[in-house]
Amino acid sequence: MRKFLRVNMGELSVKEDVWPAEQEPTGGRRLTSSIVSSEVCPTCHPLSAHNKLVLAPGWLGGTGAPSSGRLSIGAKSPLTGGIKESNSGGNAANALSRLGVGAIVVEGLPPDEDLRVLHLTADGAELVVDNGLKGLGNYDTTDRLREKFGENISCITIGQAGEMRLGAATIAITDEEGRPTRHAGRGGLGAVMGSKGLKAIVIDKEGGQRPESADREAFNKAAKRFAQLLRENDTTGDVLPTYGTNNLAKVINDAGLYPTRNFREGQFELVDNISGETQRETILARGGEAKHACHHGCTIACSAIYVDEDGEFVTKGPEYETIWAHGANCGIGDLDAIARMDRLDDDIGLDTIEMGATIAVAMEGGLLEFGDAEGAIRLLQEVRDGTPLGRIIGSGAAVTGRAFGVRRVPVVKGQALPAYDPRSAKGIGVTYATSTMGADHTAGYAIDQNILNLGRYVDPLQPGGQVDLSRERQIAAAAFDATGLCNLAGYAMYDGPEALEMILAMTNAHLGTSVDEHWWTELGKEILRKERDFNARAGFTAADDRLPDFFEEEPLPPHGTVFDVPHGELDTVFDF
Amino acid sequence: MRKFLRVNMGELSVKEDVWPAEQEPTGGRRLTSSIVSSEVCPTCHPLSAHNKLVLAPGWLGGTGAPSSGRLSIGAKSPLTGGIKESNSGGNAANALSRLGVGAIVVEGLPPDEDLRVLHLTADGAELVVDNGLKGLGNYDTTDRLREKFGENISCITIGQAGEMRLGAATIAITDEEGRPTRHAGRGGLGAVMGSKGLKAIVIDKEGGQRPESADREAFNKAAKRFAQLLRENDTTGDVLPTYGTNNLAKVINDAGLYPTRNFREGQFELVDNISGETQRETILARGGEAKHACHHGCTIACSAIYVDEDGEFVTKGPEYETIWAHGANCGIGDLDAIARMDRLDDDIGLDTIEMGATIAVAMEGGLLEFGDAEGAIRLLQEVRDGTPLGRIIGSGAAVTGRAFGVRRVPVVKGQALPAYDPRSAKGIGVTYATSTMGADHTAGYAIDQNILNLGRYVDPLQPGGQVDLSRERQIAAAAFDATGLCNLAGYAMYDGPEALEMILAMTNAHLGTSVDEHWWTELGKEILRKERDFNARAGFTAADDRLPDFFEEEPLPPHGTVFDVPHGELDTVFDF
Repeated sequence: MRKFLRVNMGELSVKEDVWPAEQEPTGGRRLTSSIVSSEVCPTCHPLSAHNKLVLAPGWLGGTGAPSSGRLSIGAKSPLTGGIKESNSGGNAANALSRLGVGAIVVEGLPPDEDLRVLHLTADGAELVVDNGLKGLGNYDTTDRLREKFGENISCITIGQAGEMRLGAATIAITDEEGRPTRHAGRGGLGAVMGSKGLKAIVIDKEGGQRPESADREAFNKAAKRFAQLLRENDTTGDVLPTYGTNNLAKVINDAGLYPTRNFREGQFELVDNISGETQRETILARGGEAKHACHHGCTIACSAIYVDEDGEFVTKGPEYETIWAHGANCGIGDLDAIARMDRLDDDIGLDTIEMGATIAVAMEGGLLEFGDAEGAIRLLQEVRDGTPLGRIIGSGAAVTGRAFGVRRVPVVKGQALPAYDPRSAKGIGVTYATSTMGADHTAGYAIDQNILNLGRYVDPLQPGGQVDLSRERQIAAAAFDATGLCNLAGYAMYDGPEALEMILAMTNAHLGTSVDEHWWTELGKEILRKERDFNARAGFTAADDRLPDFFEEEPLPPHGTVFDVPHGELDTVFDF
Repeated sequence: MRKFLRVNMGELSVKEDVWPAEQEPTGGRRLTSSIVSSEVCPTCHPLSAHNKLVLAPGWLGGTGAPSSGRLSIGAKSPLTGGIKESNSGGNAANALSRLGVGAIVVEGLPPDEDLRVLHLTADGAELVVDNGLKGLGNYDTTDRLREKFGENISCITIGQAGEMRLGAATIAITDEEGRPTRHAGRGGLGAVMGSKGLKAIVIDKEGGQRPESADREAFNKAAKRFAQLLRENDTTGDVLPTYGTNNLAKVINDAGLYPTRNFREGQFELVDNISGETQRETILARGGEAKHACHHGCTIACSAIYVDEDGEFVTKGPEYETIWAHGANCGIGDLDAIARMDRLDDDIGLDTIEMGATIAVAMEGGLLEFGDAEGAIRLLQEVRDGTPLGRIIGSGAAVTGRAFGVRRVPVVKGQALPAYDPRSAKGIGVTYATSTMGADHTAGYAIDQNILNLGRYVDPLQPGGQVDLSRERQIAAAAFDATGLCNLAGYAMYDGPEALEMILAMTNAHLGTSVDEHWWTELGKEILRKERDFNARAGFTAADDRLPDFFEEEPLPPHGTVFDVPHGELDTVFDF
């Protein structure tokens, strides 16, 4: 049985609680959303004692299943006011699983202003005061933590943004090299951690072990076959390891939905400067790494090590969404500047998508010119410094729109839209509008069918069929997020039924369960229902399941499309 | 028939439209809320072309009925996201009525960046470009407008805050002396006017005339009797003319619900420095005016002319809520400093209640110490200058709470709570929680029964009976706000049924209608239903009809009360 730890910041205690009664298989988003939905008052202030931060590896975490290192983190979101599940790669989930920890719930508010570290080892867990970490970025923080707790730790930390409790604050997770490059980025979860006075969770897996499987032999066989499927799949075996997620830049730009200059255009004239191809060439020419796994045991290895002209490390990747957000969306066609912004975001602890969208809103508000890379970098530095301007920017696009009187603010439920314009990929538009998470591509990635023609094709420019598509993808994503598998591993499912069969085989062999495909779909629905129920109790209605009106009115070049999926249809996404 | 003007900023046209089909008597809040509710898309961005700014005198406006000069202004609120009706004294409503204008609807967005003035005379209406007004405060603006359009104009203007489209921006209305001291303060209506590029509405009533009454003799008789009732009533005939609205400071402080230092305490140790008694003495000692009418024909004259030590004009009043907001709530016990802040608010065009609450939240967030009057003044100057900090502050308490990671933010539906702590006056707490307007005392002033023992008494410290009380007061307030009468005139109703009889007699004599007390109550309900329907379509639910959780948890000294009206009861306020 996995351990269920309750960290009470009011009492400054760490206690093991009984494992939730929920039936196995559970973990990841199933567990975090279930706990948030049942234990957090939906109308509470997100920074109050009533909010809880829940962290859980997926049920395959630590088992050695390929790409199973996602850590799910949940809470009531300071950005959206609704439920939030944000998951991330990095090595923390694996380390937690090796210590037998299935979930951590951080609750209450501390009685003082001290900053604390939760230190987890095979011997137990304790809260340690470390005010020396105050005001440090994630890079300095993890350096200090390694000095204190040893080189082999995994860290879950917040930067300055989280300490300031800003709406765009992330929770960082260290990668294979111990760098804080992986982030539970969306929804301001770093602010919740900051409100609880928790700067870091340090996991020393020394003395831990791989979780025992009910049938190890069957598990290993299924895991081996699943790894093979990932290698054989074109996306996970070739495109992603070669070009990373930013392989999409040219694809999405060619398709005319690469949001440019605060969602005014669908194509960016400087896309070649920032494409996955250019990124790979640049990295290789400078001696970086074009293929890099974000956590131990990931066979896809879609990340990279981005270096400067002297071959010095700058940042990981960066990812497609980050490059878009700070690039095309801000009119910036300079990969080095974007990499610097990614590094700043990672260090300060800021969501790269929210920051790119926010800077573009500030540009629309007249604060900077579109294309001003140095100005954009300065804005991020202002966040680090906690200046008033930095606090506006670090609060995200919606607050920045308020402060600068901007009308065109691309947010749903207060969260910024990612890197696909919904007017020319209407399936993802339905996901943005209706997801329990606020605008979020990973919540139901209809791009696969709208643009990449995987599994099936749904014309991205027409309103028909998009609701069915988004519903199907949202259900699938919710189930996937419970396993601990990276959602990119889901690409293998487009090659045939065997990938899901192997996921279920790994699951059953590991946990001794006997779940099937029907259960899998029902699981996705169950998770969405719980999240949606929380949001309804928090005050969300159909009026919140809409895109900002400018997407329904301003035609997007080059296709001249508007988002025209009827409101009445949007309201049927959760009819299942 | 009154004129119904549509000002289309997209076409830059002013056209007379047919008077709305709604049955008479209509005007004021009945008309503005009805037009907003039927014509504005509830989910639109408040700064978009879809929002409309609606201005309407009450149906008694311009008739010579005592204290009938309120101008009702409505729109979708940039602060709350819901419907907003904010009404103000000053001379504009009377001037509009004398030109026969019953309503103005400003719609669309301008095609350019020019700033415009709507100039209304007996000869017609036109839009005039005047970019020389850009960036001016309300005082300079009205000075310039008088230079250009003559001394006898009334002005409706926005200051810098409205031009910047900030959430706390007001619409100013000139008083008897032509000063921009009266404000449609709440809900950020100045930002809507700013988004439409409209700096001012100038009304030259020369050549206009008092609206014709169906039965002038009967009207005059009723108006005369109503004026007498106002003179005979203790509050309107004595307390208000003597001490102004700030007579309440000691009353509310003695009762233990004078919110102090961001709603941490219910009594302020420096209340004597800022009480109505001290205010009167100070004004009289310096040669100011302790009794002053805010508009022509007001027999109550609850305002004042506040002067400095040299006898120079500083500001009007200030009002009770303003003195509380910048005083006790910020821990500031200095009347001169508060008067300077009131002047700054009026000039920049900022809601004094929202500003006081916001500065206190900033103080709670560590930006200033409580009691730092010069620091508070500096914050308002930052708003005028449009600095990033000023833009945070000018966006109101909710945004300021976000930017500074503050948990205790006293807002409902995004609008700051006024000058009565809901924990020890639970009737007003019900109004704050449930009003269609966001937290608003004028929307249902239960203080009269909770504290002042007028009409009847409902124990302010107990949860029982508060919902019935608030419902009754909200219905009465809505009807009153349609007449154009100042709600303070409503005090005469506590002396017996004759005051309402005279209001109805004036109404029927003026309009040739035959409405009665039953109709009056139904009118209040109709207005609330329309507003509530708009809000429901905008996405508001029961979850929005709640006070921030800290009011339900932190006991308020000296009574040790929390707000404990059951949520289920709050949800019955609109069951009528």
